[in-house]
Amino acid sequence: MISVAEAQNIILEHSTKGGTESIAFEICLNRMLAEGIYTDRDAPPFDRVAMDGIAIDSRQLLKQQSFFIEAIQAAGQEQKPLKNPENCIEVMTGAVLPYHTDCVIPYEKVTIQNGIAKLDSMAHKPFQNTHRKGIDAKKGDLLLPSGTWIQPGVKGILATTGNTQVKVVKLPKVMICSTGDELVPIESEPLPHQIRRSNVYMLQAALKELNVEAKTTHLPDDKAKLTSAIKQLLDEFDVLLFSGAVSKGKYDYLPVVFQELGLQIHIHGVKQKPGKPFLFGTKGTKCVFGFPGNPTSTLVCFHAYFKLWLNQYLGITLIPNYAYLTKDIVFKKPLTNHLLVKTSHDNGKTMANPIANSGSGDLVHLALANAFLSLPSEQDEFKKGELYPITYFHQNSF
Amino acid sequence: MISVAEAQNIILEHSTKGGTESIAFEICLNRMLAEGIYTDRDAPPFDRVAMDGIAIDSRQLLKQQSFFIEAIQAAGQEQKPLKNPENCIEVMTGAVLPYHTDCVIPYEKVTIQNGIAKLDSMAHKPFQNTHRKGIDAKKGDLLLPSGTWIQPGVKGILATTGNTQVKVVKLPKVMICSTGDELVPIESEPLPHQIRRSNVYMLQAALKELNVEAKTTHLPDDKAKLTSAIKQLLDEFDVLLFSGAVSKGKYDYLPVVFQELGLQIHIHGVKQKPGKPFLFGTKGTKCVFGFPGNPTSTLVCFHAYFKLWLNQYLGITLIPNYAYLTKDIVFKKPLTNHLLVKTSHDNGKTMANPIANSGSGDLVHLALANAFLSLPSEQDEFKKGELYPITYFHQNSF
Repeated sequence: MISVAEAQNIILEHSTKGGTESIAFEICLNRMLAEGIYTDRDAPPFDRVAMDGIAIDSRQLLKQQSFFIEAIQAAGQEQKPLKNPENCIEVMTGAVLPYHTDCVIPYEKVTIQNGIAKLDSMAHKPFQNTHRKGIDAKKGDLLLPSGTWIQPGVKGILATTGNTQVKVVKLPKVMICSTGDELVPIESEPLPHQIRRSNVYMLQAALKELNVEAKTTHLPDDKAKLTSAIKQLLDEFDVLLFSGAVSKGKYDYLPVVFQELGLQIHIHGVKQKPGKPFLFGTKGTKCVFGFPGNPTSTLVCFHAYFKLWLNQYLGITLIPNYAYLTKDIVFKKPLTNHLLVKTSHDNGKTMANPIANSGSGDLVHLALANAFLSLPSEQDEFKKGELYPITYFHQNSF
Repeated sequence: MISVAEAQNIILEHSTKGGTESIAFEICLNRMLAEGIYTDRDAPPFDRVAMDGIAIDSRQLLKQQSFFIEAIQAAGQEQKPLKNPENCIEVMTGAVLPYHTDCVIPYEKVTIQNGIAKLDSMAHKPFQNTHRKGIDAKKGDLLLPSGTWIQPGVKGILATTGNTQVKVVKLPKVMICSTGDELVPIESEPLPHQIRRSNVYMLQAALKELNVEAKTTHLPDDKAKLTSAIKQLLDEFDVLLFSGAVSKGKYDYLPVVFQELGLQIHIHGVKQKPGKPFLFGTKGTKCVFGFPGNPTSTLVCFHAYFKLWLNQYLGITLIPNYAYLTKDIVFKKPLTNHLLVKTSHDNGKTMANPIANSGSGDLVHLALANAFLSLPSEQDEFKKGELYPITYFHQNSF
């Protein structure tokens, strides 16, 4: 068996980068930009009024305190000129700064009576309360490099720059397969020895949080049927995720079926708990992840391995994250212990509070966790206050 | 003008709790559960085999080391009995523990030859490698209280317990309205004094990250048209979000239109930068949020005020979060300074790195930030290493 770090390196070696596609602006949120976005104009595109008030020629400040209002410059109107330098123009936020003016004085610092604006003080500077043309970016500047994650602010920039179509990294086509003859559909009343399918829905939800819409299917514990079903799924999908059937059981046919279908199995067994029987294989650019069938094993392996693969596919750079253990833990096996935790915050620090649970088959307590700490295999005792790597179960944690 | 804390209290006083609805299991991710979920059976529902191997009667351990394999108990099969206490049954993970057995010995600790399993050692304990009936929950136990956020693990529990329909808190119907005659559609080539609409798309994306699908519209800077459009929108939607037209400009008609339509304006003006002209009003259970039109003001007010309202509507308890400022900042105005930052992690601590920007109209640099620090108004100097409240622009940060 290999270590967690070795397994993660193997995954990274065998993951491919996704292709690109052009999609509509409307649906580009939480996708990875695959082109550089350049401004088609200066940002802002004109000297922009940044406060409601009056615009004057600041050189007049030494000479006069009262200004006749000769016009109004509203947002969305063509630039007007100040005809008489001794006058002013009322200006609105978002408007073009009128020609021959260079100073905006907000209403709060002006008294207006009978069409005359009187300044409360003369302490004003050229270009105050203006947002100057090109100060944020010049026409032709690279605003968003390829490899930018499209979050709401980025979507705002794509709108401003008129990108009705956006080139992004394609999403992989993913099928989630449950195995195990003990599983019955949610709507069923299970017999005493049966349980309802749940891992596939948990994985589907975890994928949806990563913006990947995946399908689910169930495959029987029958070698011939498994083989023909998987052969077909490999044609249609980029990635197959399996829950169950990768361990040492009599009906754990997946490893042998994968081999017969010509898949190269790069990982089968990792020095970790939970998730020891974890399997990863590839055939060309297609790949299969075999997660052990217990809920915690499945979800932990999904985040420790599949998410790593997906990040590389999309071009997301993972920044390792750490949290403080809040309780002494003893774990004597020479395995990496993926410890379920619920995080909290304490004065800007991330605290990892272990979730008591009955093992990897325990879905009830898994749902209370929002992350896991990976406690290194070479240690037996882990003390309160020590810092360990953390992996979150939710999106936006990369 | 009121303080940020006063404004937030007013929002909380005037926010209502959302009603409930029953939705299909398939679409319940990232919704707020509005009913308690009880187990319909013990969890696990039977003494479950937790390792592939053999099951024996542990009392035999003192007497014998080799066990004849009399049957196989696969997952999904009805419980079998061990007929002869001196024999064993091969068992698979997920199977029912056979009747008259109480101890699972994994394949790793057994040598099987000619149908006889020989133990490597006698050091085994009753009920080892089993997941005992009801250990995680007893039939009738409350597994998920009302007010649980449906994340992937929770969805797994809803599946296990057979909830094909789920009672959740309704989502509010939200319309996002842009104002400002300088705005043109994304697909347009703007004239020199025009800019493309972007705030509405940024807000729509921010709402989508909170799982709320909102619509967008544009309203002209014309009082009569605004009045009739808003009257109609108030009938159809629970919440209207406005970007622009709430300040002191000549064409900032919203405050007066709201009053004429019978809305109570609870907030208009907050001691903060950006976002000073922020407005909040209600009419019955309907409410309007008037965000100042600059991109940063809009997004900051959305997160500081609308998200607070939404959390209360959905029943999410907000836990305040803090981060370490990484740079000295001087800000002398008696206003709360919502400082754009990009967070990073340093040994389990959240670090807030200020984003240089040219003010609230600067969309380019806003897109680089993932959060803002709220620096209190009663201070002028903020030192590197000090801890301040942080608000994230992304989901899953509550």
